[in-house]
Amino acid sequence: MSTTAPLVTAALLVIGDEILSGRTKDKNIGYIAAYLTDLGIDVREVRVVPDDEREIIEAVNALRARYTYLFTTGGIGPTHDDITADCIAKAFGVPIDVDPRAVTMMRERYKPEDLNAARLRMARIPQGAELIENPISRAPGFRIGNVIVMAGVPAIMQAMLDSVVPSLETGARMIVETIEAGHVPEGLYAQGLGQIAQAHPGVTIGSYPAFSITGFDNQIVVRGKEASAVAQAAAAVRDLVVQLKAGQGRA
Amino acid sequence: MSTTAPLVTAALLVIGDEILSGRTKDKNIGYIAAYLTDLGIDVREVRVVPDDEREIIEAVNALRARYTYLFTTGGIGPTHDDITADCIAKAFGVPIDVDPRAVTMMRERYKPEDLNAARLRMARIPQGAELIENPISRAPGFRIGNVIVMAGVPAIMQAMLDSVVPSLETGARMIVETIEAGHVPEGLYAQGLGQIAQAHPGVTIGSYPAFSITGFDNQIVVRGKEASAVAQAAAAVRDLVVQLKAGQGRA
Repeated sequence: MSTTAPLVTAALLVIGDEILSGRTKDKNIGYIAAYLTDLGIDVREVRVVPDDEREIIEAVNALRARYTYLFTTGGIGPTHDDITADCIAKAFGVPIDVDPRAVTMMRERYKPEDLNAARLRMARIPQGAELIENPISRAPGFRIGNVIVMAGVPAIMQAMLDSVVPSLETGARMIVETIEAGHVPEGLYAQGLGQIAQAHPGVTIGSYPAFSITGFDNQIVVRGKEASAVAQAAAAVRDLVVQLKAGQGRA
Repeated sequence: MSTTAPLVTAALLVIGDEILSGRTKDKNIGYIAAYLTDLGIDVREVRVVPDDEREIIEAVNALRARYTYLFTTGGIGPTHDDITADCIAKAFGVPIDVDPRAVTMMRERYKPEDLNAARLRMARIPQGAELIENPISRAPGFRIGNVIVMAGVPAIMQAMLDSVVPSLETGARMIVETIEAGHVPEGLYAQGLGQIAQAHPGVTIGSYPAFSITGFDNQIVVRGKEASAVAQAAAAVRDLVVQLKAGQGRA
């Protein structure tokens, strides 16, 4: 059943000088990656670019052509460095102007006299886009074609993601099995694991080393879209690890 | 003085399925961005790609052509999914083989009988590369041309960065002034800030909204390489914020 589900892919474009300077530590990449993966949308690429028109347009056009969806974060606030909406309009070659639907949403928060020119910048939406609700601060995100434009502030981005997701196509969910290799070093299981990976081409097998105060704390992860293929490969990995742990015990 | 320093730029390529699936939350982007920025190396782009040969080679060749340096993290361990070194060799069109210098480094940790085929994979280094020491687990990173190849495990990556940095060209350091806008909403200062940005083209001015339990907690950041230009723009921003805070007090 799962093999007939379509393959749905995505890229994420993080827009903002503050991430590239290290001033702001990004919290959106990991959140969006886990969220979309869980829905059966495979995140294939992430890029971070500065608040620079040429760079943003180039990345948007490269990524929207290559994947089912492109998600962007950042650059949709009221200040002069918020240029994402204008760049998206240019990337699509469509006009952009203050959108009355967005103004209506923003009136739930702002009194008419507080909707100054700067705040109305947040209502500038490329022609043909659908709005994405923002229950927190009201200024909406939007979707145009396969591009989903969201805020950079994590709480607002997360609310926008919740709003937009029901309208997205999703694929077969990735099935994941994690095998704790614990103290067994990668160098000991690498050869056996490579053989298992070759024998099970329908899954991907990753080895993730970590160090803790007590030494290695390694994990092996088997991922795939067919439950039986994942289960078979995971069983083989588990056997390998049990064997090696027994060997370590004897040593 | 600072204006005569060369402009030194960098990109970062994060390699690994586990970041794109959300399984592992990246900790290297923010660290490397802050570290290089502090040295006067401007990070202009970050990409995250999967453990896929075609994707890695394409990204390496795109990024190494565009920036002074390309840093990579991930994919240099002993398991079958560690394909970074081979991809770098292919991107440069050079042979790759077990490097006796790398084996010597690894012998500080491994007994000869423990240097099995899998572990020797970590000594595979593209021809012409210089090694980067790894004081933690010994298997080295390397530098070839303007590409610096590091481990993905944060502690090891950080040690490799410390090792390689003295050999890098650095530019004028970015001078940064942060003005606390506090509770003043972006929508109130956006117009004035835009005017200041236009009047001070030698600096970049960013506005970074945040929410805390007590409401807005906004910061405005002025960045540039000329101290006097940064100081003048920052003074103008500070005046604007003081004026607006006084206005809020009266309201």
